[in-house]
Amino acid sequence: MYSRPVPRGPLRRVAVTGSTHGNEMSGVSLVQHWRRAPEELQRPSFSALPVLANPRAAAACRRYVDLDLNRAFISTFLTARPQPDDPYEVTRARELNQLLGPKASSQAFDFVLDLHNTTANMGACFICNNADNVFTMHLCRYLQLQNPETLSHVYLYQKPEEESYSVDSLGRNGMGLELGPQPQGVLRADLFTQMRTLVAQTLDFIELFNKGTTFPAFEMEAYRALDHVDFPRTEAGELAGAVHPRLQDRDFEALRPGEPIFQMFSGEDVLYRGPGTVYPVFINEAAYYEKGIAFISAEKLRFPVPALPAPAPAP
Amino acid sequence: MYSRPVPRGPLRRVAVTGSTHGNEMSGVSLVQHWRRAPEELQRPSFSALPVLANPRAAAACRRYVDLDLNRAFISTFLTARPQPDDPYEVTRARELNQLLGPKASSQAFDFVLDLHNTTANMGACFICNNADNVFTMHLCRYLQLQNPETLSHVYLYQKPEEESYSVDSLGRNGMGLELGPQPQGVLRADLFTQMRTLVAQTLDFIELFNKGTTFPAFEMEAYRALDHVDFPRTEAGELAGAVHPRLQDRDFEALRPGEPIFQMFSGEDVLYRGPGTVYPVFINEAAYYEKGIAFISAEKLRFPVPALPAPAPAP
Repeated sequence: MYSRPVPRGPLRRVAVTGSTHGNEMSGVSLVQHWRRAPEELQRPSFSALPVLANPRAAAACRRYVDLDLNRAFISTFLTARPQPDDPYEVTRARELNQLLGPKASSQAFDFVLDLHNTTANMGACFICNNADNVFTMHLCRYLQLQNPETLSHVYLYQKPEEESYSVDSLGRNGMGLELGPQPQGVLRADLFTQMRTLVAQTLDFIELFNKGTTFPAFEMEAYRALDHVDFPRTEAGELAGAVHPRLQDRDFEALRPGEPIFQMFSGEDVLYRGPGTVYPVFINEAAYYEKGIAFISAEKLRFPVPALPAPAPAP
Repeated sequence: MYSRPVPRGPLRRVAVTGSTHGNEMSGVSLVQHWRRAPEELQRPSFSALPVLANPRAAAACRRYVDLDLNRAFISTFLTARPQPDDPYEVTRARELNQLLGPKASSQAFDFVLDLHNTTANMGACFICNNADNVFTMHLCRYLQLQNPETLSHVYLYQKPEEESYSVDSLGRNGMGLELGPQPQGVLRADLFTQMRTLVAQTLDFIELFNKGTTFPAFEMEAYRALDHVDFPRTEAGELAGAVHPRLQDRDFEALRPGEPIFQMFSGEDVLYRGPGTVYPVFINEAAYYEKGIAFISAEKLRFPVPALPAPAPAP
């Protein structure tokens, strides 16, 4: 399960990316602020680089200009010969691959933390492609221990055999930090402060690791994506119902067969017909309507994470 | 103060418009539903017409395509000779003026109800250009009496001498119905149901009036727009602070001089420096960032509304 190598040396090249989705305002505003005041991202052993991942989308306050940048870091796009009519985000993915990669190579950044917001009631969610990265699992554990009063979850999105496609997959290690609920195009002070604190704690964790701290083995609880569930729609594709009030805002809570998931405009309820209990996430996320996703069903996992040894001293 | 004539006959031509802003999903989805099931808008004395005001913006799930349709119903746009490169919403404003107008003329629709959502914590808000329309003031009062458990407010947006510019100004009478908070691009079942109920009650009120009901004089409480307040920004126009946590979500509550309105990214608070108490509305509305509006300060008014006499019998 742990195919990614544990870092053998200190992490020196660290990036924090915002505006990967241009209307997710906590990360957009934080990165804009850090570009004016980079000292906040400094630690004794490294300085993290603030990166405005999708400046055109941020300027337009849209998720993307031509296509979703956070699905664009795939070999088809990264290795193809550039064309004049390439979508903006394909060009931008190649630029970021040059800046932070080449993707997951030994020359890539040591850690990429990518900042997101969701309209779903997800609280603080640490998004990893899978559980194979011991370093990132320990980071998630550290963030949970530092914030005992905050609801936070670890979410594993990548299907087996699926190619990674997100900004943070450029780094040798990486993670998405998702905070919600926040409307697209809105900056809430409470989530801004929460994200700022979580980023600072991430840098603190890297600093602790760089200084030779070891972290003991533990058991991780996480949620792994199973299926996408679309809204009920008419033949023309228009919505025919909404997320049921009894499901709305209940991200990461158990959904059992027979419980309602949609309320049709005609009045009746649509019940969940799956074979067993699942844990819905990204319930009613604005950006997922166009992807045909009303929510993603996930399973809850518990698995052991081995100890994180101290890195070898810097050469 | 009451320059608009009280309707002298029954209101037969009634329209309910949605998607005036294409990412305000309660109205978009309701109008799409009513176009499939128009019987819900029928009353004994009339049938309301569901109108998808901005179909291209709805299809793209954006507020607008070229410019804000709900500012486009001004004589400059409505009377100018059409040009091939007119913005989409200018063309659409002329089409709607033909369908529902000519604007505020004796040939215009008797009532236009325009459906909106806001990301601000506005609850149910009845938006009128000014208080000069006795019929609409009585409608607001009726809706408040029908929903005693719901927080609802009357908001008057038009400055003296300012030309009306909204969709509902096409009709001889009209009103905007604003429900929040709801993120752009998200349909919440609770707000969908609330808006559906308020529209049904609006049609019920018109039906009562048409049948000869009289409504007694009363005293109205309403909020009238004073000033726009922008976010603190850098010289480059980037945000330098967020709406203060003590102001966020407090629409229609008193804001006194010396109370905080913004939290700067650098840490300090910005205090309200106005001369007296105001009532902020549209606090942190996503669509207003590009307009340079963090909130609108309003004053609270109380004024008498005369009785609404029954209409003359239909000829």
